[in-house]
Amino acid sequence: MSKVFGIIRHMAGNTFGKLFRVTTAGVSHGPGYLCIIDGCPAGLALSVDDLLPDLRRRKPGQSKLTTQRDEDDLPEIWSGIFEDKTDGTPIGISFRNGDQRSNDYGDIKDKYRPGHADYTFDAKFGFRDYRGGGRSSARETICRVAAGAVAKKLLAIHGIRILGYVKQVGSVIANIPDPTAVTLEQVEASPTRCPEPVAAQAMYDLIDATRKDRDSIGGICELVAVGVPPGLGEPVFDKLKADLGKALLSIPAVTAFEYGNGFAVATMRGSENNDIYRTDFRTETNRHGGMLGGISSGMPIVCRVAIKPTSSIPRAQKTIDRDGNATEILVKGRHDPCLLPRFVPMGEAMIALVLVDHLMHAKTSKI
Amino acid sequence: MSKVFGIIRHMAGNTFGKLFRVTTAGVSHGPGYLCIIDGCPAGLALSVDDLLPDLRRRKPGQSKLTTQRDEDDLPEIWSGIFEDKTDGTPIGISFRNGDQRSNDYGDIKDKYRPGHADYTFDAKFGFRDYRGGGRSSARETICRVAAGAVAKKLLAIHGIRILGYVKQVGSVIANIPDPTAVTLEQVEASPTRCPEPVAAQAMYDLIDATRKDRDSIGGICELVAVGVPPGLGEPVFDKLKADLGKALLSIPAVTAFEYGNGFAVATMRGSENNDIYRTDFRTETNRHGGMLGGISSGMPIVCRVAIKPTSSIPRAQKTIDRDGNATEILVKGRHDPCLLPRFVPMGEAMIALVLVDHLMHAKTSKI
Amino acid sequence: MSKVFGIIRHMAGNTFGKLFRVTTAGVSHGPGYLCIIDGCPAGLALSVDDLLPDLRRRKPGQSKLTTQRDEDDLPEIWSGIFEDKTDGTPIGISFRNGDQRSNDYGDIKDKYRPGHADYTFDAKFGFRDYRGGGRSSARETICRVAAGAVAKKLLAIHGIRILGYVKQVGSVIANIPDPTAVTLEQVEASPTRCPEPVAAQAMYDLIDATRKDRDSIGGICELVAVGVPPGLGEPVFDKLKADLGKALLSIPAVTAFEYGNGFAVATMRGSENNDIYRTDFRTETNRHGGMLGGISSGMPIVCRVAIKPTSSIPRAQKTIDRDGNATEILVKGRHDPCLLPRFVPMGEAMIALVLVDHLMHAKTSKI
Amino acid sequence: MSKVFGIIRHMAGNTFGKLFRVTTAGVSHGPGYLCIIDGCPAGLALSVDDLLPDLRRRKPGQSKLTTQRDEDDLPEIWSGIFEDKTDGTPIGISFRNGDQRSNDYGDIKDKYRPGHADYTFDAKFGFRDYRGGGRSSARETICRVAAGAVAKKLLAIHGIRILGYVKQVGSVIANIPDPTAVTLEQVEASPTRCPEPVAAQAMYDLIDATRKDRDSIGGICELVAVGVPPGLGEPVFDKLKADLGKALLSIPAVTAFEYGNGFAVATMRGSENNDIYRTDFRTETNRHGGMLGGISSGMPIVCRVAIKPTSSIPRAQKTIDRDGNATEILVKGRHDPCLLPRFVPMGEAMIALVLVDHLMHAKTSKI
Repeated sequence: MSKVFGIIRHMAGNTFGKLFRVTTAGVSHGPGYLCIIDGCPAGLALSVDDLLPDLRRRKPGQSKLTTQRDEDDLPEIWSGIFEDKTDGTPIGISFRNGDQRSNDYGDIKDKYRPGHADYTFDAKFGFRDYRGGGRSSARETICRVAAGAVAKKLLAIHGIRILGYVKQVGSVIANIPDPTAVTLEQVEASPTRCPEPVAAQAMYDLIDATRKDRDSIGGICELVAVGVPPGLGEPVFDKLKADLGKALLSIPAVTAFEYGNGFAVATMRGSENNDIYRTDFRTETNRHGGMLGGISSGMPIVCRVAIKPTSSIPRAQKTIDRDGNATEILVKGRHDPCLLPRFVPMGEAMIALVLVDHLMHAKTSKI
Repeated sequence: MSKVFGIIRHMAGNTFGKLFRVTTAGVSHGPGYLCIIDGCPAGLALSVDDLLPDLRRRKPGQSKLTTQRDEDDLPEIWSGIFEDKTDGTPIGISFRNGDQRSNDYGDIKDKYRPGHADYTFDAKFGFRDYRGGGRSSARETICRVAAGAVAKKLLAIHGIRILGYVKQVGSVIANIPDPTAVTLEQVEASPTRCPEPVAAQAMYDLIDATRKDRDSIGGICELVAVGVPPGLGEPVFDKLKADLGKALLSIPAVTAFEYGNGFAVATMRGSENNDIYRTDFRTETNRHGGMLGGISSGMPIVCRVAIKPTSSIPRAQKTIDRDGNATEILVKGRHDPCLLPRFVPMGEAMIALVLVDHLMHAKTSKI
Repeated sequence: MSKVFGIIRHMAGNTFGKLFRVTTAGVSHGPGYLCIIDGCPAGLALSVDDLLPDLRRRKPGQSKLTTQRDEDDLPEIWSGIFEDKTDGTPIGISFRNGDQRSNDYGDIKDKYRPGHADYTFDAKFGFRDYRGGGRSSARETICRVAAGAVAKKLLAIHGIRILGYVKQVGSVIANIPDPTAVTLEQVEASPTRCPEPVAAQAMYDLIDATRKDRDSIGGICELVAVGVPPGLGEPVFDKLKADLGKALLSIPAVTAFEYGNGFAVATMRGSENNDIYRTDFRTETNRHGGMLGGISSGMPIVCRVAIKPTSSIPRAQKTIDRDGNATEILVKGRHDPCLLPRFVPMGEAMIALVLVDHLMHAKTSKI
Repeated sequence: MSKVFGIIRHMAGNTFGKLFRVTTAGVSHGPGYLCIIDGCPAGLALSVDDLLPDLRRRKPGQSKLTTQRDEDDLPEIWSGIFEDKTDGTPIGISFRNGDQRSNDYGDIKDKYRPGHADYTFDAKFGFRDYRGGGRSSARETICRVAAGAVAKKLLAIHGIRILGYVKQVGSVIANIPDPTAVTLEQVEASPTRCPEPVAAQAMYDLIDATRKDRDSIGGICELVAVGVPPGLGEPVFDKLKADLGKALLSIPAVTAFEYGNGFAVATMRGSENNDIYRTDFRTETNRHGGMLGGISSGMPIVCRVAIKPTSSIPRAQKTIDRDGNATEILVKGRHDPCLLPRFVPMGEAMIALVLVDHLMHAKTSKI
C-alpha cells in the first residue's frame, strides 16, 4: 500500500463561508454528525421546528424513488439559542445516526466501488472507513440542509426566497417557461420534485423503471433565487457566480454548473446574449441569470446543476481490490435509483449559505 | 441615486488560494496592476522570462481575431527572487498600463453597457470607474496569468502539465478524441487556439465573419491536467471539483463549468457512467474527469467552460443611463469579437493555481 | 436600550487555526459544548482516554482552591476516529453540561457584574444569556483543552513537549532557575501547580487566605515548549510570537503576554540582550525565548502570561443595571479565588494548537 | 547545510486582516515594496498626501537618534482611487528602495548576526537574502504605516483616534497621568516621541549616550485608542485583546504586550482590579484597558508593548558562520540606537488595522 499511496497530508476543508460560517463533522456509519453555524446574527427567532421541513424533504424513505434507509434525522440544538432567539454565539447541532446496518457494506471493505470515492480516500488518507461512504457519503448534507434552513430564514427577512426543482431526469425535460413562477407547493406535489405534472409523471415512471432494471439515472436540477438585491458578489475572485459554483459543486454527485444561458452561450452572438435594460433598472430578458460581472443585478438568479446517476447500482460490477486484484462487486445497501428528488433541498441550502454570507457584507441588514 | 443603491459595504475578494495565495490590484484605465504571490516555496529558479510566454499568449493584438489594443504587458518583479531563485518571501509583480485611449470610452460614462458590469458596480459601490471596465475588465487576468506561470513551473517539477484549447466556437465543434494527446504546439498553431486544423479554420472564418458583421460569438474551452497524483482535494467543502469550478467561474465571461461527463450525465445510467478500475489503479474510461468524491483519482483532469460572446459589440444597442432614462449606446473601444483564443492561458492559469494550492497540502513536495 | 446599543452585526470568531483548525460552540448554562477539530492527519492513535488527563487538570473541584462546581466533563467523540486511529475526517466532540444551578445567577439577570463581559455582550449583541457567563464563560476552554490534547499527541511524535506552571500568585514568586527542567510531576504535586515546593505552599496559603477574605488574587503562568525545530513561524504577520500571543490572549482573564526577556528588554542594552550562538547552532543564553524574527530558533520557547484576579468575588459590589440605575450586586455562584492552577492546561492547550498548526506547514511530518 | 535545515515548506503569512485586508511584499535590499489594501469601502477621499504624515514619522534620518539611511519613502498609488475617492477596488501602493548601500552588509553574508533572524530564515527557507534583513527588516513596516494611514482616516470618520508615545527608554519612565490627554503635538515635540518634556530630555540624553557607547537600548511604547464604540471583538478566539496582541507582536523587535493593568494584575485582588460602572455605562477607573471579555467597553483602549534594544550594535560580537564555525562579526550598516521613536507610527498603524477590521463587522458604518 505505502508505495502506492504517498499523499497523506491534507488540510482542513470542512468549513464553508466567511461571515456566515458552517463547519461539519461526521460519517455515515459512525455515532452521528455535528454542525456548528458561526456568525448568525443575534435576535433571529429560531427553534428545531424551523429546521424540520427541509430536513424532511432531504430525508430518505419518502417514496419508493428514494432509499428505504430509515433515519430519524432529528436535530438536537446544543447552543446559540436563548429564549427562542439566536444569541449571536455559534449554533451547535447534532444528529445521531440510527439505522446503520453496516454489515450491508461488508463486501466493500477491500473492494473499490466504481464511481465512488473509495479509492481516492485510500489514496489521500492511507485508509478509509470501509463501513460505507464515510465522509464522502451524502448523509453529510444533513448538516448543510439544517444550516441552510437557518440561512433561508435570515434571507426571508430580507425578501429573498430560494426554490429548486427537478428540471430533467434522463431524457425527460420539464417545460418551465418562467422559473420564478414555480411554487413550493408545485414542487412538493410530486415525489420527483418536478413542478410540471406531465413531466413529473414521466420522470416517476422512468425512475421506477430504472430501479426495476437494477440501474440508476441522472438529471438536472434548476435553482432560482428571487428578491436578491443588486450588489452582492466580490470582484475579482469571490464573485457570486464563482461562489455559487463552488457551493453547488461541493455537493456529492454534482458534475456541472451553469447560470443564465450557461453552456448555450457557446452558440450565441453578443447581440443575442446581451440583455437590454428597462427604465426600472431591470432587464427585459434574464439571459445573464441575475449576475453581471459576478455581481447580482437584482434580476432572479437562475442556475442549473447536473447530478450523475447513483454510482451504487444493485448489480455486479467489475472492479479491483485494494491490492489491485481484479474482482467483482455487488453493492448491497439501499440507494436511490435517482438522486434528483432528494437533491433539491441540498442545492437550495448551498445557495442560501452563499447568499447569506454575501448579504452579511452588505450594508442594509435588517437584523 | 442613493435611494436606488443601498449596498455599499463589501468584503475583500481579491485574494485567491490558501497556501499558494495570489492577491491582485488594478483597473484597466489606471496606472497599472500589482500582483503579490504569497506562499511560493523557496528555491524555485524563476525570472521574468518564465512569465513571458503565457503573458504573450494572453496579450491583445496577436491576430485580427483579437483586440488591437497595444499593451506592453511587461512585468516588473519587485521581490521574492534572490540570486535567480525564489526566496520564500512574497513575489511582487507590477504591470504598467500603457496605451489607454480612455476617450474611447467617453460615451459610457453615464450609460450602462448591456452585458457588462457597469450597473452592478454602481449598485455595489455607489459609483464606478467609468473610463472602462475598471476592476471588471479582463485585463486583470494579466496578474492571474503571471501567477499561473509560477504555479505551472512548480507543477512541472511534480510532473503535472496543464493545457487548454478551444473546443467550440459558435456551432463549430472540434473533434478531439483524446484530450490528453493535444500538444502546446498544436494549440498555438492557429490564432484560434483550436488544435484541430479543420475546425480551427472554420472557427477562424466564423469569428472573422462575425467581426465583420459587427457582432461577437461565444464558445467552449476544454482544459486538461495530466500527471495529477491521486489524493488532491479536501472533503467536504474544498473538493477539487468545487475549487476548480470556483477558479474558472471567477474569470470574466465564464457562464458554465463541467468536468468529465458534465451535463451529459443527465441522460446517463449508472451502468453507463461508472468507470471500471484496471489492475493498475487507473480506470478504463475517464467519464469521471479525474475526480471522484471531489478528490483527484490519478486520471487526467478534464473540464470545460463556456465563455459568452463579447458583450461589447460595435453597433448601437438600446440601454439606459444612470438616472434610468432610455437611451442608445455605441461602445467604441477595441474588443475581441471572440474571447476564446485569449481565454486559454487564463483558464490554464486558474487551474494551475488550484492544483498548486492543493498540492502544497500533500506530503510529497519536491521543493 | 436601542439607542445605547447600536452594534449588533458581528463576524464568525469561533474558529482557531488554519491547517489544524478548531471550532467550538456552547455556553455555560445551555445543553453543552460542541468542538470540531479539522485537519488532524489520518493515522494518529486516539481515543477518549487521550483527552482525559488534561481535562481532569482543567476540571473544577480539584481542591478547595478551585470552584466546587461539579462537572462530569466527559467527552463523547462523534467522528474522526476509525478503528482507534484518526481517519483524516473532522473530529467531533461533545460535552454535556451537568450541574448548572442556574438559579444561583438570578441576581445578575439585569445587573452588570464588574470585571465581567455582561455589559460588553449586551452592547455587542443587544442582549445576552443572563444565566451565567454564557459564551464568555471559561467553561468554553473545555473544548480547547480537548483539542489541545490531540495537538499535544501529534507534537509528541515530533519530539515537542509543552509544559506550563504557576510562576507567581500575588507577591509570591517561584524561583525557577531552568524552566526546561520542570517536570509534569513537579507541577502536579501541588494543587497550586507551582513546581517549586516552598513557593507552592506560600501560594496555597495566600489563595486560601484570599478566599476566606471573600476576595480573589491574580498571578503569572510560565509556559515552555521544548523540542520545537527551528523554522516555525511565518513572516511577516503570522510570526510565531504573534500567533502565540493571540492564542494566549484569547483565553479569558489573560491581560498580558511576553516571551524571552519580555518587558525586561525595556531597560536592557543590545549588548546585554543579544544571545550569542554556539557552534551547535544553539545560543549560550535564551533571552530571545526561542524565537528570532518571529521564527523558532530551536531553543526552548519560553513565555509568560498574566491572569487577572477572578472578577466574581463573594462580596457586595457597586454596579448598575441594564437601564443605567445604580445598584449593588452580590455574585453568588461558585468561583475560583485564583484562576492560576486551572489555567495551566488551558495555556498549554493554546500553545499546542499554535505549534501543531505551524508544524503542519513544515516539511518533515512524521504522520 | 541540507542535513541541518530540513524545513522549507511554509505558508502564506503576508496578509493581515479579514474584511480590511493588507498584503505586503518586498525586502530591504531589493527593488522595493508592494502593498495591497483590499476591502476599503468606496467613497473615502484619499490621496498620497494622506499617507505622507505617518510615513514621515516612520522615516529614518529624522534626528541623530535614528538611522541616517536616506530613503525617499514616497508612495506611488497604482489603483483603488478614482476622482480622489476610494472606488472599492483594492488600493495598490509601491515604494522604491533607493539608498541601499548593500556593500555595508557584506560581512554578514555568511555570519549570523546575534539577535537577528539570519539563522532562523536560513533554517526555514534553506537560504536567505544576505544583503540585509531581507524580509525580516523593519523597512517592511513602511507598507503597514501606509495602510494604517488609510485605516486611521476611516476610523476618524467614526470618531476613533489612535495615538502612541514613548513611555519608557531604559530606566527613564515618563509620568503620564492621563493617557487620553496626550496630544499628537506633545508627542511630536521631541525626537524621542515622549510627550513629557523632562522625561523626553532624559531619554534623549540616554539614547545619545548609548549611541556614543556603541550600544543600543530598549523601551516601552504606550498606545491609546479613544472613541472606540462598545461591542468590537469576536468571542471566543478573535477577541479584540487577542487581535491587538497579535498585531503588535507581529512588528519586529516587540517582545511583550499588555493592556489595562497588564502584568500588574498578578499582585492585585479582584476588589482592587474590578472597575465600577457609573450610570452613564462608563467605568470610574479603566483598569480593564477598554476591553472586557475581549470586547470593547467604550472606555479608551490602553495598551503597552516592549521593544527590545536594536540587535545591530556597532561593535564586534562573537557569533558563528553558516557552517557553525566560531567567528566575530562587526555589523556596519546604519541602525537606530533606540527603536522607540520610529516605532510609534508602526504601533499606531497596527492598532488602526485591527480596529477598522473589527469596525467593518459592526452595523453602524458611516461610509
